[in-house]
Amino acid sequence: MKLQLEDVDDLCTGAAFLGAGGGGDPYIGGLMVKQELLAGREIEIIDPDDLAPDTLVIPSAMMGAPTVLLEKIPSGEEPVRALRAVEHALGRKADATMPTEVGGINSTIPLFVGARLGIPVVDADGQGRAFPEIQMETFAIEGVSGTPMAIADEKGDCALIETDDHHRMEWIARGITIRMGGTAYWAAYPMTGTEVKRASVKHTLSLARQIGRIIRTSRHDKLDPFEELERFIATTSYGRAKRIFSGKITDLDRQTSRGFTLGSVTISPDNGRSAPCIIDFQNENLSAKADGKVLALVPDIITVLDAETAVPITNETLRYGQRVAVMAVGVPPIMRSPAALKQFGPQAFGLSETYVSLAD
Amino acid sequence: MKLQLEDVDDLCTGAAFLGAGGGGDPYIGGLMVKQELLAGREIEIIDPDDLAPDTLVIPSAMMGAPTVLLEKIPSGEEPVRALRAVEHALGRKADATMPTEVGGINSTIPLFVGARLGIPVVDADGQGRAFPEIQMETFAIEGVSGTPMAIADEKGDCALIETDDHHRMEWIARGITIRMGGTAYWAAYPMTGTEVKRASVKHTLSLARQIGRIIRTSRHDKLDPFEELERFIATTSYGRAKRIFSGKITDLDRQTSRGFTLGSVTISPDNGRSAPCIIDFQNENLSAKADGKVLALVPDIITVLDAETAVPITNETLRYGQRVAVMAVGVPPIMRSPAALKQFGPQAFGLSETYVSLAD
Repeated sequence: MKLQLEDVDDLCTGAAFLGAGGGGDPYIGGLMVKQELLAGREIEIIDPDDLAPDTLVIPSAMMGAPTVLLEKIPSGEEPVRALRAVEHALGRKADATMPTEVGGINSTIPLFVGARLGIPVVDADGQGRAFPEIQMETFAIEGVSGTPMAIADEKGDCALIETDDHHRMEWIARGITIRMGGTAYWAAYPMTGTEVKRASVKHTLSLARQIGRIIRTSRHDKLDPFEELERFIATTSYGRAKRIFSGKITDLDRQTSRGFTLGSVTISPDNGRSAPCIIDFQNENLSAKADGKVLALVPDIITVLDAETAVPITNETLRYGQRVAVMAVGVPPIMRSPAALKQFGPQAFGLSETYVSLAD
Repeated sequence: MKLQLEDVDDLCTGAAFLGAGGGGDPYIGGLMVKQELLAGREIEIIDPDDLAPDTLVIPSAMMGAPTVLLEKIPSGEEPVRALRAVEHALGRKADATMPTEVGGINSTIPLFVGARLGIPVVDADGQGRAFPEIQMETFAIEGVSGTPMAIADEKGDCALIETDDHHRMEWIARGITIRMGGTAYWAAYPMTGTEVKRASVKHTLSLARQIGRIIRTSRHDKLDPFEELERFIATTSYGRAKRIFSGKITDLDRQTSRGFTLGSVTISPDNGRSAPCIIDFQNENLSAKADGKVLALVPDIITVLDAETAVPITNETLRYGQRVAVMAVGVPPIMRSPAALKQFGPQAFGLSETYVSLAD
């Protein structure tokens, strides 16, 4: 399926929704993709179930603090150079690229890379949403080697990492990203078609586009976008979506530290009487609590949306006074296994709460 | 010339002397080299003037905080793996290795690598002493590309850096070294024989061995080691050595930060009446001052020696109460050019004092 120009905005809206507040604003990535399409280049989206067993897929992505991305716009050469460096290390060209995460800008980076290199993009990813660290991938859980991993910046610098440990890959790559100025572009987790089928969260680019379409058309058709989203998500592997809070942003604590955007946002309820909702984030929203009670918890997706339009608001654009609704979404079974929860459940973020899936 | 077992200790003593307090204690490196010789492997030291024009030389070294090196002993595989990674990136095997700095442990790392890989070691280096940062190389000043640079740790992890800027190479590699635990092993500045002849400080391994021999034999022959050192160094390209201070260590401020050993040492004079000498260091000693007057300044070599035996004391082993003498040594002309002073003169370390060579 060829990606159409009119799909890009929907895909970006859906990617912001699945980004759980993080993942980097897909707006910039969307502009990069549209520019490629307007220049006459094509972007072929392919179904993971159609991959030949020995196809070489090299995922590509951005990493770093979304707050930095707002001011340090990519030239476009960075992710292409990273993918080329992995190809060079493997001694083989990629047959396709794919997202490592579907949430945020990383849904669009592989589309851009695919356009530039003339290779298709697999309709799947390794997070089914956005997570802040690069070992938090279903690829890693399913035993795919992260390296050779390449990481490139806008100055033309590139580093290639080799390690047998996904956490150390993240640790070293994060150090490089900080030294590269807070954001960088990477390619890693090279996989065969067989591995993609086993280790990825499937059809998530299509999911993002559909979520974006629902948010856009609900407004036009005068439907409640929250109800429409809940209805649609119930038909997918994500199982369930639910509006868990509404109110006004009354406090915001946001820092850029350790290569991440860290902090919390407080949303006071419309009625003004009950307890506010507090959402903590490390790039992505990790927990939503009110009155000491957990409303939603990672890996479930917690997204802050405009109270009227349901347009998602990423954490770097949160502002005091915004009227918002908070939506929680379950995640597919591959993201709820004991191995998956070890990699990106609450304890992986230092939280003590026990995860109970919204999907159950 | 084959390196003999009985030369190793002298070479290590001389390397500690040229290390200007930094460079990492060569003791550990000396043990590694002796183990190779005792295992029957040979280490061939070759004269840079004898190199064929198209010989490929890949220097190898350790980087990080000497204080960390004391507790995190290398397995020996790290520098070998780094050199192999540069070979892989170049698609060509190294014909020889060489030191990037002759001061400290980095005089011995290439000897070890040469023994393991069965390749000779060039009798030359890129610093003529030790400096704390990896762009502070005559190689860089003479226009040799630093990359491909590889950096490896004891866990088996490796990173390959590509950049066209020596400062950014240092910046990124230092970030990786910190994340690798504070010390790491690298290979970089791959050079042809022609480049080595133009861009290196020559015959510095021989110089280190001779300095070590003088310190050892002076004691045995009941000669004043300081006078013997001054006499010998006056016959070399370093031009001049001078004992600039004697006394007892009365204060020591030493921290491990930003991947370096940082601080200062205060030496109070034997007479107890005049002002103390204060030496500031960033791994290596940068300046020696007394009563607000500069006694010696980087790139001249400032080394703290045992007051009796003239055995050099590296900064991580300085202790309160030690009786010491401070010796300053000039550096060869290639290290005093305007380009050289820009790379590793006082201003490169944020010092405001004007360098006046001791050799002049």
